[in-house]
Amino acid sequence: MLWFDGALIAGPTAPFDLADRGLTLGDGVFDTALAIDGRLVFEAAHVARLAAATRALGFAVAPERIAQAMRAVAGGAGAIGTGAFAAIRTTVTRGSGPRGLAPPAEPRPVLWASAAALPPALPFASLTLHPTNIRRNDTSPAARWKTLGYLDAVLAATEARAAGFDEALFRNTHGRVACAGTGNLFALFGTRLVTPPLSEGVLAGIVRAELLRLAPSLGFTAAEQPLAFEEFLGADAVFLTNSLRGLAPVRAVGATPFAAHPAVAALGEALRAAMRP
Amino acid sequence: MLWFDGALIAGPTAPFDLADRGLTLGDGVFDTALAIDGRLVFEAAHVARLAAATRALGFAVAPERIAQAMRAVAGGAGAIGTGAFAAIRTTVTRGSGPRGLAPPAEPRPVLWASAAALPPALPFASLTLHPTNIRRNDTSPAARWKTLGYLDAVLAATEARAAGFDEALFRNTHGRVACAGTGNLFALFGTRLVTPPLSEGVLAGIVRAELLRLAPSLGFTAAEQPLAFEEFLGADAVFLTNSLRGLAPVRAVGATPFAAHPAVAALGEALRAAMRP
Repeated sequence: MLWFDGALIAGPTAPFDLADRGLTLGDGVFDTALAIDGRLVFEAAHVARLAAATRALGFAVAPERIAQAMRAVAGGAGAIGTGAFAAIRTTVTRGSGPRGLAPPAEPRPVLWASAAALPPALPFASLTLHPTNIRRNDTSPAARWKTLGYLDAVLAATEARAAGFDEALFRNTHGRVACAGTGNLFALFGTRLVTPPLSEGVLAGIVRAELLRLAPSLGFTAAEQPLAFEEFLGADAVFLTNSLRGLAPVRAVGATPFAAHPAVAALGEALRAAMRP
Repeated sequence: MLWFDGALIAGPTAPFDLADRGLTLGDGVFDTALAIDGRLVFEAAHVARLAAATRALGFAVAPERIAQAMRAVAGGAGAIGTGAFAAIRTTVTRGSGPRGLAPPAEPRPVLWASAAALPPALPFASLTLHPTNIRRNDTSPAARWKTLGYLDAVLAATEARAAGFDEALFRNTHGRVACAGTGNLFALFGTRLVTPPLSEGVLAGIVRAELLRLAPSLGFTAAEQPLAFEEFLGADAVFLTNSLRGLAPVRAVGATPFAAHPAVAALGEALRAAMRP
């Protein structure tokens, strides 16, 4: 199921310009959202973030067009017969251009969206993290947008799985904690909840923002603050957030184990509630 | 003119799987080569490097298939009526896969190549460099392959042009000179020719290797050695190399001017000679 060029098509193949800069240069951005029974969770935030990314990169796409594509595939996702959960991926590229790096003066962005069944066991499942030696490049604006250049995350995930872990943990060029390969990271110290600020080379995660918003009502103080790796390893609990996993408790970071923590369970329950209509 | 899936087609549009990981994750590599009157310059080196990149990333494509694609579009490039020079771009992706980062167990790589006319004034023309604050991520294996993730280079090139320069200069996470947005960099100190080693986050440029090979016969000692930025700015001359520009003398790096230098001209002449059949 694919929304491409303004219409639903069977997919996955479509007539595509092989000079599209998303394909030739990674010159594009995307969004991954969760759909439950055809309804997009945190839809407004997903649409706003992707639209903001296209504006920041100079090939603005109207939020309405993005929302239309997301909703079309989310609404159709019930029809793919996969149960309640679907992953909705929406991609926007700068469109095609002449050879070379210089963007076309008048970009004609290309937008499409697709839905994929999500294993019901994935959301909120705990996981383990492998610290990779590949650094998250916090000096690049691209580190703060969900751009098409995910090869570092692919390589680190492969390395993590080979070492017996579920996911990679990235430090940034300063050696401080940045994020996981596919999610934001939080550390809990007593009732203090800390996550690295965006300037550390971090995507403005939708669930990350939701947790920062929810935390005070559950008795936590929430702060965006740089986290040294040793400090992170010394936390009472750590967890990962992203739009498909929701809140995933971390059982281990490398050789450092973390026990299940009631505060993390409480935050998870609050998030589950916020995800309901 | 496009070689896609084993045949020449008019292009630029082809039926393409939008779940191709090259498009969704930047999970692919490419090569840019110069063709003169339909003949690929340094063909063997280009084919070998691209094949090596696919092996390193775990989706090996046979050198013969790569050479066939390159030659098909290079040979046809005369027909596009653009004069002597053409840029031949050859792209290989890991092919399509299920949602998520994990590569498919048995990748089915996708290969295509295209030709574009090259302005005759481009090769060997001098240029100016703007030092960007985006760092080249030398901690990533991707920094040493020509991967699809070029957004940092796109952003830095845009910034460079806005500041009145031709190209961006990247330092790495240590602050040392890495490369330009689209080429390797050399500095000349007396008769010593220095370029950063690959471990600095540098692509193994084909012309870079050719110059390291040619230099001794012209009375230079050639070394791969880390270069502090201030050291680079203090060189007698600096130049850029890539497969389309050949050797491009650098007239300025930010506010630091460089005069034309006879040694750079001599190296350029030697390279021109090596590019002839």
